[in-house]
Amino acid sequence: MGRQIKYGHLLHGGDYNPEQWLDRPDILKKDIEYFKEAKINTVSVGMFSWAMLEPEEGNYQFDWLEKVIDSLYAEGISTILSTPSGARPKWLSDKYPEVLRVNEKREKNLFGGRHNHCYTSPVYREKVAEIDRRLGEKFGKHPGVILWHISNEFGGECHCPLCQEKFREWLEKKYGMIENLNSRWCTTFWSHRYQSFSQIESPSSLGENELHALKLDWKRFVTEQTVDFMKAEIAALRETGTEIPVTTNLMYDYDGLDYKKFREDVDIISWDNYPGWHKKEEWLTATDAGMQHDLMRSIRKAPFLMMESCPSATNWKPINKLKKPGMLLAASLQAIAHGSDSVLYFQLRQSQGASEKFHGAVIDHYGGNDTRVFREVTEVGEALEKLQEVTGSVTCAKAAVLYDRENDWALKDAQGPRNEDMHYQECVLKQYRALRAEGLDVDVISMEHALSDYKILAVPMAYLFSEKYEERLREYVAQGGTLVLTYWSGLVDETDKCFLGGTPYGLMDVTGVRSTEIDALFDWESNHGIPEHGNRLGLQKVYECKNLCELSEVSDAEVLMRYADDFYAGSPLVTHKAYGEGHAYYVGADMEQAFYDDLFKGVAEEAGVKSLAEAVPEGVSVNVRQSENAEYLFIQNFSRKEVVVPVTGEYQEIYGTGSEVLAPLQTRVLKFERK
Amino acid sequence: MGRQIKYGHLLHGGDYNPEQWLDRPDILKKDIEYFKEAKINTVSVGMFSWAMLEPEEGNYQFDWLEKVIDSLYAEGISTILSTPSGARPKWLSDKYPEVLRVNEKREKNLFGGRHNHCYTSPVYREKVAEIDRRLGEKFGKHPGVILWHISNEFGGECHCPLCQEKFREWLEKKYGMIENLNSRWCTTFWSHRYQSFSQIESPSSLGENELHALKLDWKRFVTEQTVDFMKAEIAALRETGTEIPVTTNLMYDYDGLDYKKFREDVDIISWDNYPGWHKKEEWLTATDAGMQHDLMRSIRKAPFLMMESCPSATNWKPINKLKKPGMLLAASLQAIAHGSDSVLYFQLRQSQGASEKFHGAVIDHYGGNDTRVFREVTEVGEALEKLQEVTGSVTCAKAAVLYDRENDWALKDAQGPRNEDMHYQECVLKQYRALRAEGLDVDVISMEHALSDYKILAVPMAYLFSEKYEERLREYVAQGGTLVLTYWSGLVDETDKCFLGGTPYGLMDVTGVRSTEIDALFDWESNHGIPEHGNRLGLQKVYECKNLCELSEVSDAEVLMRYADDFYAGSPLVTHKAYGEGHAYYVGADMEQAFYDDLFKGVAEEAGVKSLAEAVPEGVSVNVRQSENAEYLFIQNFSRKEVVVPVTGEYQEIYGTGSEVLAPLQTRVLKFERK
Amino acid sequence: MGRQIKYGHLLHGGDYNPEQWLDRPDILKKDIEYFKEAKINTVSVGMFSWAMLEPEEGNYQFDWLEKVIDSLYAEGISTILSTPSGARPKWLSDKYPEVLRVNEKREKNLFGGRHNHCYTSPVYREKVAEIDRRLGEKFGKHPGVILWHISNEFGGECHCPLCQEKFREWLEKKYGMIENLNSRWCTTFWSHRYQSFSQIESPSSLGENELHALKLDWKRFVTEQTVDFMKAEIAALRETGTEIPVTTNLMYDYDGLDYKKFREDVDIISWDNYPGWHKKEEWLTATDAGMQHDLMRSIRKAPFLMMESCPSATNWKPINKLKKPGMLLAASLQAIAHGSDSVLYFQLRQSQGASEKFHGAVIDHYGGNDTRVFREVTEVGEALEKLQEVTGSVTCAKAAVLYDRENDWALKDAQGPRNEDMHYQECVLKQYRALRAEGLDVDVISMEHALSDYKILAVPMAYLFSEKYEERLREYVAQGGTLVLTYWSGLVDETDKCFLGGTPYGLMDVTGVRSTEIDALFDWESNHGIPEHGNRLGLQKVYECKNLCELSEVSDAEVLMRYADDFYAGSPLVTHKAYGEGHAYYVGADMEQAFYDDLFKGVAEEAGVKSLAEAVPEGVSVNVRQSENAEYLFIQNFSRKEVVVPVTGEYQEIYGTGSEVLAPLQTRVLKFERK
Repeated sequence: MGRQIKYGHLLHGGDYNPEQWLDRPDILKKDIEYFKEAKINTVSVGMFSWAMLEPEEGNYQFDWLEKVIDSLYAEGISTILSTPSGARPKWLSDKYPEVLRVNEKREKNLFGGRHNHCYTSPVYREKVAEIDRRLGEKFGKHPGVILWHISNEFGGECHCPLCQEKFREWLEKKYGMIENLNSRWCTTFWSHRYQSFSQIESPSSLGENELHALKLDWKRFVTEQTVDFMKAEIAALRETGTEIPVTTNLMYDYDGLDYKKFREDVDIISWDNYPGWHKKEEWLTATDAGMQHDLMRSIRKAPFLMMESCPSATNWKPINKLKKPGMLLAASLQAIAHGSDSVLYFQLRQSQGASEKFHGAVIDHYGGNDTRVFREVTEVGEALEKLQEVTGSVTCAKAAVLYDRENDWALKDAQGPRNEDMHYQECVLKQYRALRAEGLDVDVISMEHALSDYKILAVPMAYLFSEKYEERLREYVAQGGTLVLTYWSGLVDETDKCFLGGTPYGLMDVTGVRSTEIDALFDWESNHGIPEHGNRLGLQKVYECKNLCELSEVSDAEVLMRYADDFYAGSPLVTHKAYGEGHAYYVGADMEQAFYDDLFKGVAEEAGVKSLAEAVPEGVSVNVRQSENAEYLFIQNFSRKEVVVPVTGEYQEIYGTGSEVLAPLQTRVLKFERK
Repeated sequence: MGRQIKYGHLLHGGDYNPEQWLDRPDILKKDIEYFKEAKINTVSVGMFSWAMLEPEEGNYQFDWLEKVIDSLYAEGISTILSTPSGARPKWLSDKYPEVLRVNEKREKNLFGGRHNHCYTSPVYREKVAEIDRRLGEKFGKHPGVILWHISNEFGGECHCPLCQEKFREWLEKKYGMIENLNSRWCTTFWSHRYQSFSQIESPSSLGENELHALKLDWKRFVTEQTVDFMKAEIAALRETGTEIPVTTNLMYDYDGLDYKKFREDVDIISWDNYPGWHKKEEWLTATDAGMQHDLMRSIRKAPFLMMESCPSATNWKPINKLKKPGMLLAASLQAIAHGSDSVLYFQLRQSQGASEKFHGAVIDHYGGNDTRVFREVTEVGEALEKLQEVTGSVTCAKAAVLYDRENDWALKDAQGPRNEDMHYQECVLKQYRALRAEGLDVDVISMEHALSDYKILAVPMAYLFSEKYEERLREYVAQGGTLVLTYWSGLVDETDKCFLGGTPYGLMDVTGVRSTEIDALFDWESNHGIPEHGNRLGLQKVYECKNLCELSEVSDAEVLMRYADDFYAGSPLVTHKAYGEGHAYYVGADMEQAFYDDLFKGVAEEAGVKSLAEAVPEGVSVNVRQSENAEYLFIQNFSRKEVVVPVTGEYQEIYGTGSEVLAPLQTRVLKFERK
Repeated sequence: MGRQIKYGHLLHGGDYNPEQWLDRPDILKKDIEYFKEAKINTVSVGMFSWAMLEPEEGNYQFDWLEKVIDSLYAEGISTILSTPSGARPKWLSDKYPEVLRVNEKREKNLFGGRHNHCYTSPVYREKVAEIDRRLGEKFGKHPGVILWHISNEFGGECHCPLCQEKFREWLEKKYGMIENLNSRWCTTFWSHRYQSFSQIESPSSLGENELHALKLDWKRFVTEQTVDFMKAEIAALRETGTEIPVTTNLMYDYDGLDYKKFREDVDIISWDNYPGWHKKEEWLTATDAGMQHDLMRSIRKAPFLMMESCPSATNWKPINKLKKPGMLLAASLQAIAHGSDSVLYFQLRQSQGASEKFHGAVIDHYGGNDTRVFREVTEVGEALEKLQEVTGSVTCAKAAVLYDRENDWALKDAQGPRNEDMHYQECVLKQYRALRAEGLDVDVISMEHALSDYKILAVPMAYLFSEKYEERLREYVAQGGTLVLTYWSGLVDETDKCFLGGTPYGLMDVTGVRSTEIDALFDWESNHGIPEHGNRLGLQKVYECKNLCELSEVSDAEVLMRYADDFYAGSPLVTHKAYGEGHAYYVGADMEQAFYDDLFKGVAEEAGVKSLAEAVPEGVSVNVRQSENAEYLFIQNFSRKEVVVPVTGEYQEIYGTGSEVLAPLQTRVLKFERK
């Protein structure tokens, strides 16, 4: 399970850049006073400090950092220490140009930005390892340092000759013989056959851009090379004997990397959470943010850290709105409810210049503690102290939704019925939201996850089946699971090569259905589903569907719903088949939210899964964290009106309103002791 | 007229890629069974087979192809054999980088895609010629091979040094002296004068991008160089003594090439037809597709081949809809009605991978013949057998619309009244549609076409007059033709140099009108035309006009209609003048469809041109093909309601409903024997 | 004040390209006849004549030009003579590639376009100086030449190695020590610290693109380098002893250069005016154009020249509409009203080819004088003769609006509350329009302008305060001025480094307000302001605000208006504080036009500033020019209905309708003699 962080309380604090204020000791001193006032117990430093830590090659200047860490520690504040590889000093890229990236058009980048380094470059790896080792030696046993923060928000890709060469090696290792690659990649199409691995080049808009298998493997390689880079950083630290756990901060639904591949190499998952509150109704945004929390938690199926969040308005969105009063607290406690052991901010003190100078901060340019933001941050600090006992408690979801990055990559690049938008994310989100509306904890999983923990498994648009996923689904159903599978599933293998003989591949007997055609609808078109009289789930309404409508032949399944319109009116749309000990539902079209709400209500009842809360009104979010001795029920009202959430049983309110009535943005936390 | 294809029946079949299935002889065998079941008599092979035909330089492997062609022939199925130049093997571009294109920004392409080869490169030409010769030797007298298919969908351009040099030679040949070029191109503007041909560079967004004459000549050069490349391929085949005719497949309204320049060098025109059915009402799409069929037929004024069409949904449009039942048959017979001697599909069997894996096919990944698509393809096959006698019959249109690619290029690049959109294509289409609504066969012609066949000639927005077109129009009218000329005509010569002294150049006396100013309207603006009381065509309605409104001085013409709004209310908008034996109508603004419908109704009556059908309801398409002994009247209902199309005279229904009533998408073919 | 043009009358004429017609002496002769007929007294030549003046290196051919200037002079027509540096001959860029630009992606341009030359290149400067000197020698004392026109519409930037080097020198001169630059630029952020000036590179999308101070200094450098280039041209002319004054033509709201830096080096400001008439109501366009006239006049606070304007439709806008009858005259007289001493057109005769062939001209391709445009141009000529006595009279505005280019650059690049659009220009325009609605003359000034002339000073969104602007504003108010300051003011210094301690920096005591937070609104959101009962300006309506809403703490000010909505309902929105002898108003949000109209009505009354006209109906524009002996009141009706503009006092109508009633587009000019 990796090394454990020794904290015992929820972390509160965030990113801090003292190197920007070394000429202002008065400010550095004031900061600590403010931190304590705001119940800040943890500070992250070092993310972009390389130029200050090694101002010239080989000239290491760690004193200022030591002083900061010591001062914080003296005041009871812990440090998360970052390796500085997220941005390089100018001298480094001037002396060793190979460290700068080459983009997909084969243009060499100039110095600038942040994530602008080749993950393959031996020089860059060596220089990073060297400074990491020195940091490890200096701070690796410091009692104030509780976590290594490896680099910052890994991302992007490089197409330099070094990466090309590495990619070829990676492919050779994967495919062995070039003939095998040709066959798996279907290179005979358009005469794109390779005679040797040395002929392969990464995808480019100036060259090969439509060989989907190449693009998919390139994305896999980018992930693996990034992980490998991170592992090299961790190894450099470990060489020094430091036993402090490691993490790296991930990003919201970032599609440049397959985060599941980071699972083994970090000790704890952490991520940066920046929902766009107040753009639409808050409960919609909360569901979206909640799914990301669940996705991050599910990577290791363990508590995680919210490494960054914004105490006020961001400065990098098109429109950067203020958080309304109460929003910061509710959003912070949402992270805890979903399994975070921290509320950390970017940033503690605002930079005076450059591109993030207007990003919200606990302490702004004005510099006082008499601000609304400072007061609200303090309120969060107080709440976290009250909730200290939930630290380390876990989430035991009985329902899961498949949301796999490789599937996402393949599906979007596939050139199929809709090139404008397949609406994959929306389809996943609708099913996630329907399960959450039942008050259920939900894991958001990849194809690599074990399935046996779940009673309900939603598998939307699983276009790509990797490593015989069809067999794992079959076994899951056979052994009693309830599977909800949709249109556009089981079409290709992991190299985007189509299965022959009918789809959903390997599951036609499990579902009793074979997909025959798929119709794409223009944005202004829709079809409808009409439930069959007396269907097993009691569906009664007419539901709208849009975008994609699959036609199918039913060999052996109950039809629950049929199409209402177009030439396929009357054709099957939703079916059910009992298979082994379990159930297989198949949904043929991109249905509206109300359908999924009703479907999963029925499915949950059938599967006997239910929430600790008696009822979950629209806009309310319910989560459970479990420790050895207790269950903690988090109830949050993200709607814009007052709600009543009845809860029965014996519990103690450890945070909240003292009533089943919650005003907008209010939170209750109820503790149920285990008998 | 070029070599004739020896078929005697309508071709049915399409693109086939057996090289993708060489490891599956069971599938290759099954394919032939299926072809026969679906009445498929023709198969196109070899388009992108170079890597399989010459896997390494000089190592030719034709056995697999021979086996395929023999097997097909043995079962009565003919082969259209493609030269493989549409995509190169990797070894070729690795060894001879000059074969890859350079784009207009002077970036060298990498290997990838399809049309990514320099048409000038001597090496590429040599390598192509070599494999073409070997194919010619091997298959050039094979009884199963009925047509050479040169490359595939020629297109794109290259700005490499070889092309630059060739362009300079081409210009020197055209202009002789640099002073002549300077004068014709108006290079004194902005000091862009050249001292020698060697100074000239192709247009580039990094350099010369506003010298319209340069850009126009560059486009002409690209066409000529492409044709020259094709001619080199044909010559290589002919060297081997093969007498099989040649074609190359053209594309829908492709503006990268001037297709009229292909006329002399192919034996038959063929093109790839992919209308976006069901996006708007089918009859609108049918008119659009019909115009393209007519354009392709008009290139050689002879029957053509529909070389590709989609049996199901495409996969490369933003939204790829299924064809509704009956659509495939109607669209296939539309091609025949407009002069095609074939219905060929892309593709017979779906690829298992890469960018076209989801493009519709006769046989899909499922692999069975028990699919809707397979049944509908078979239905087409049966229909074509019934229509066998129309093979080779011709279209004798009495009306024509000018739609010239050079005019299109010049007009769009001109920087005149509207840079957003001049609505040229729409203007052409409205006039085409109005003529077709009268039930007339229509040729869609370029400025090079002879005019004497036509009683009615629509000349919309003929901005550029090449090679004294004004004199040919004058003669056409003088000898009895009816010309409908519009605004924005006769402004520049073939180097985009403005005529002095008034426009429409050379036709001010023929029309009795001189254009004085042109007003551009914003998209939200419109003006209106009010007919003059008692005008010769009996126009009575008020019509809307948009986008462009020309003001003119009438010297000597009847005003049929005047503007209703703005400061030019009351000014002439539509005029008529009798000139010589004929009539010249002039239309001053971008009128709505209804105006053109009424105008051409009157003009057709006046000219005494009419359809074989008594009446043509909206949404119905009527075409006539003529053989030595008979006329074949095709009636197709592309509307969404039942229609009655009365036909008098003595005829025999060789395909259809047996009644004058046609349901949506139904087709009748009536044969009128010549007395 | 620079050299004076010796004219004594208003200039009428414009750009003329005789070099395009040297083979048509008949046309050149006809042109002069037409010029005289249209009262054209001034012609601009030579803008893009380099290739004709020096067809090969060192071979100068000035005879044709001399002949043209002599012929014009013989007929009483003056010449404005341009240096030809706006476009280079092909031989020059072929022989000396360094003269061509490198773009920000470090791509070397090819020959083409116009402004495609490096302003740093020593070779380019030398070649330009040489031809300028020769022109100076030949024409510098010619009695027909009245003005040197340096190059044409300076603009664009170059990132070549020569410019990089110059930029580094410029920075070193500015900052002295690299540590100073690091500190001012806040380079510690993201490890972007420099160790030496030699490490610095210009901004690039392939490299450094988010260090705002670098980008701001780069823009300043581009302006300075452009001015330096212009100064080198002027110096070359002056070397020859010519005493003719110089100008260069500026462009509409061009944001690539900071025009205030041209002030010292030209003798008179001139600019090219192309409003998009008839896109919206004419009076809205007139206000917009009026602000640009005022901005240009304010640069030197002196009469200017309208160097270009279009006699008909342009050809480079998306939609190029015809000017309706009367529009040309009204727009031409508007220039005079705002301080221009000329009405000059681009162009006198239309080019026959290339990119501007359809740009409107006095003489078009038809070539006659019997056109609407020619008649209207003649009408302008006649009007200018009637107004001859206003030549050289000045504008004495009592109100000013700050619109500073450096502020514009910084504000747009800042990455703050709204990255989509901060609506800066609109905010400036609303305040300008409100002041003009009161009939006031308005200066549009930069932060460098002296403030003592003004009774009212509008300072909208002054994000950046350069060179202690806060102190100048404080002094302005203290000494009796009325300041209207808005939200988002006083946040950063001239290197975009945030002020600490509260904003508006240095003015919290002057305004009695400290800004605490700023909310960004989505486009579909709005808030409202509710006036306080009995507020000093008598504001009574509820006004809408959008986009940006600032929250503030009021220490010591009268609140005039409060927010109506959202969580900050009831918070202060508009305040007033008397400070010293003056008044400081603070506006917290992006208010609608009606608010500013009412605010400035009250402010003008309070400040005792008023118009010569008794009332100014909506759509009417009123301006005053003053000579030693008289005031000239220009009244123009840009609305679409007849208006009455009452004027009292003793005056003489020197141009107009003879009545206080003005039809749409009519103009009156009234002369008030000084007693």
